[in-house]
Amino acid sequence: MSFPPDPPFRPFRIGIAGLGTVGAGLVALIQQNGDLLTRRAGRPVEIVSVCAQNRKKDRGVDLSGYEWVDDPLTMAHDERLDAVVELIGGSEGLARTLVESSLENGKTVVTANKALLAHHGRALADLSAKTGATLAFEAAVAGSIPIVKVLREAFAGNRISSVCGILNGTCNYILTEMRETGRDFADVLKDAQDKGYAESDPSFDIDGIDAAHKLTILSAIAFGVPPDFGRVHVQGIRHICADDMVFAGKMGFRIKLLGTTRCANGRIIQSVSPCLVHANSPIGAVDGVYNAVFVNSDCAGGSLLIGRGAGAVPTASAVAADLVDLARGVKMDVFGFPPSALKAAQWADSGETVAKFYLRLNVADRPGVLADIAGILYHHGVSIESMIQHARDPREPVPLVMVFHETLQRDMDAAVKEIETLESVDRPSCLMRIEPL
Amino acid sequence: MSFPPDPPFRPFRIGIAGLGTVGAGLVALIQQNGDLLTRRAGRPVEIVSVCAQNRKKDRGVDLSGYEWVDDPLTMAHDERLDAVVELIGGSEGLARTLVESSLENGKTVVTANKALLAHHGRALADLSAKTGATLAFEAAVAGSIPIVKVLREAFAGNRISSVCGILNGTCNYILTEMRETGRDFADVLKDAQDKGYAESDPSFDIDGIDAAHKLTILSAIAFGVPPDFGRVHVQGIRHICADDMVFAGKMGFRIKLLGTTRCANGRIIQSVSPCLVHANSPIGAVDGVYNAVFVNSDCAGGSLLIGRGAGAVPTASAVAADLVDLARGVKMDVFGFPPSALKAAQWADSGETVAKFYLRLNVADRPGVLADIAGILYHHGVSIESMIQHARDPREPVPLVMVFHETLQRDMDAAVKEIETLESVDRPSCLMRIEPL
Repeated sequence: MSFPPDPPFRPFRIGIAGLGTVGAGLVALIQQNGDLLTRRAGRPVEIVSVCAQNRKKDRGVDLSGYEWVDDPLTMAHDERLDAVVELIGGSEGLARTLVESSLENGKTVVTANKALLAHHGRALADLSAKTGATLAFEAAVAGSIPIVKVLREAFAGNRISSVCGILNGTCNYILTEMRETGRDFADVLKDAQDKGYAESDPSFDIDGIDAAHKLTILSAIAFGVPPDFGRVHVQGIRHICADDMVFAGKMGFRIKLLGTTRCANGRIIQSVSPCLVHANSPIGAVDGVYNAVFVNSDCAGGSLLIGRGAGAVPTASAVAADLVDLARGVKMDVFGFPPSALKAAQWADSGETVAKFYLRLNVADRPGVLADIAGILYHHGVSIESMIQHARDPREPVPLVMVFHETLQRDMDAAVKEIETLESVDRPSCLMRIEPL
Repeated sequence: MSFPPDPPFRPFRIGIAGLGTVGAGLVALIQQNGDLLTRRAGRPVEIVSVCAQNRKKDRGVDLSGYEWVDDPLTMAHDERLDAVVELIGGSEGLARTLVESSLENGKTVVTANKALLAHHGRALADLSAKTGATLAFEAAVAGSIPIVKVLREAFAGNRISSVCGILNGTCNYILTEMRETGRDFADVLKDAQDKGYAESDPSFDIDGIDAAHKLTILSAIAFGVPPDFGRVHVQGIRHICADDMVFAGKMGFRIKLLGTTRCANGRIIQSVSPCLVHANSPIGAVDGVYNAVFVNSDCAGGSLLIGRGAGAVPTASAVAADLVDLARGVKMDVFGFPPSALKAAQWADSGETVAKFYLRLNVADRPGVLADIAGILYHHGVSIESMIQHARDPREPVPLVMVFHETLQRDMDAAVKEIETLESVDRPSCLMRIEPL
């Protein structure tokens, strides 16, 4: 083949449904880097049509060269299109209908829609297999970090034992700010909202739901099981306080909201929760809006990927990667397994997790309190590795921080539940797993 | 498709030429994870034949199920094989002949041979395009880190500006040991040789040649140019001394052998040299035999991948990824560009690099020396940012360490060259770039 390809070469033609930040970012990317896409794919990626709710809104990109479509569902049937790019979002409604009708119609779909995959991944994989239409979604997890491709292809020779990541940039930004400025959660959240780093309704991010969506997708690819959002134990970061930042730091740790999926003896545990990681580990140094994913597997060993987890252009970069793959003629099973090879998962109880833990209690500063707490811990077989208590104003509760030797999560939870019944202990306390990454 | 696939399914059949650590590791991987490869690829990966110099050697794996081939070149013509896996190594001789005749014969090749790609990549890409036979080489660079795939596919929508990595595990092990134990280079090298982490002739690793081979391959994929080993400015780590570790540490840096390829205004600079990185950055925390690659691109932004860079099983994991891709029917241009789209590179002079620098001199502890040095620096327009000098025995030369504001490499080199002519300054001095990763 000569370069540029002699006509008639066939461009790879797409329709883009949804022109929010990612959609507009994708248009800009294709306009700016079109020459490079052509060089790499051997053919141009060409936008035929676009569609969004408001035609008049200024999105900072020139849309004049593209057909404006009022009903995105017509894209599912548009014979000119090689692929429909769904960037509407949401697990139901228009996004879901568009993806389903496109696949049903044998049309390739590229999407960044993590909620859709998390809730309906299995059915979509079956649909894709039935009609042979590819469903690509690199942009659904961790922005520009190519973790979907890496799990599905680069580690295909490996038995993966765990995938663990900082999957939500908003939470990582808030936790980083709390650590660096000493401010409390509510204060930093408000600031993040003012700056546009957090939504006005932030619960999707800070309560861990967004990370849990992404985690179910990673589980599916890592272990060859259908995504199951209902099986994620989800805890957000609202209960982390400035004291936790200080104490974790003193003990050589940093606090990160981690999504973790682990498979041991064929049984999987999925969780999203704030955890402590070593401050001097590579993942401990991942700050601000960056994401990171750590993969543990039998042959490759421990691998870590760090990159921009969100934002218009990094996410558009992931969509573009899928488009170039498709333009190159690469077809891939939805979760990297033929759907018939996806096995129903066996789930382990999260109580079976064995880990070291960090516990911060706010206790009344008076005699006998520590004896009560120590007695409860002893009764549950939980053994203290180290402890910090700093006296402050004796009329105020004082933080008491403990780190425990490896313990069953079940025993740890039971001990904390009992400790929280003590009249001298404030609620809520803060219990976090320590991840030896 | 049902799972397991109903017969007649067609296995993906391979011959493995070379049964050193990686070859034996690949056999072990396929034996242990064969079920998983089948599940992921939708068909088994089957070893038909193997070949190596010594049939009788115990390699720790059972080879009894495979045909033993005495002449690997017969594999190039073996109609039963879907791919030949070349793990013989070396840029010339048998490895080269086997890869060339396989490709000429239209036979897919998977290899871990970085020297071959670095020296003959362009010709092999042309050959692959001519016959349509794929040449896959994920294992050639950075072991289990899937940097070939990530540059070629995941960042395909990006204009990449630089790729920078810790590409040699032996050097990183030695530098880490020097820092942690305070011992000098020669001492740690001997220890590494005794432990099998360094070869008895270590120059390939410690003089930067191995890293340079890998770097040329990364350049080719990042920028779409033919690999050109002759255009890498290569410096190894022999001249780093225990003092450098101490001073770099005091200033908040760590010393890493970095391979760096940068493209600015269409002109590329490739170098392998020891550099300073911030101790508290993720790449600063990459120690021991781990590798890391940092990619800077216009859309994805800064991305970092960390993993095991060498060893039998991590490298076999990378070979297996290529095999699963091929078994899945994925075909890819050799450097991720159709060969006709590979452009001859334009090279920039390394003197044009602008960076901060670290310089350690050993100087006589007597009046006037600093004035002489400062005068030379001033004359070359080099401006000091900070300086450390510790008095020791006045009869011995004392280390004088300086960090400079951003400077043209050309000016820096000229200043150091002139400083080294001073009778009061010992040679060699140690000049290192500071990489703001």
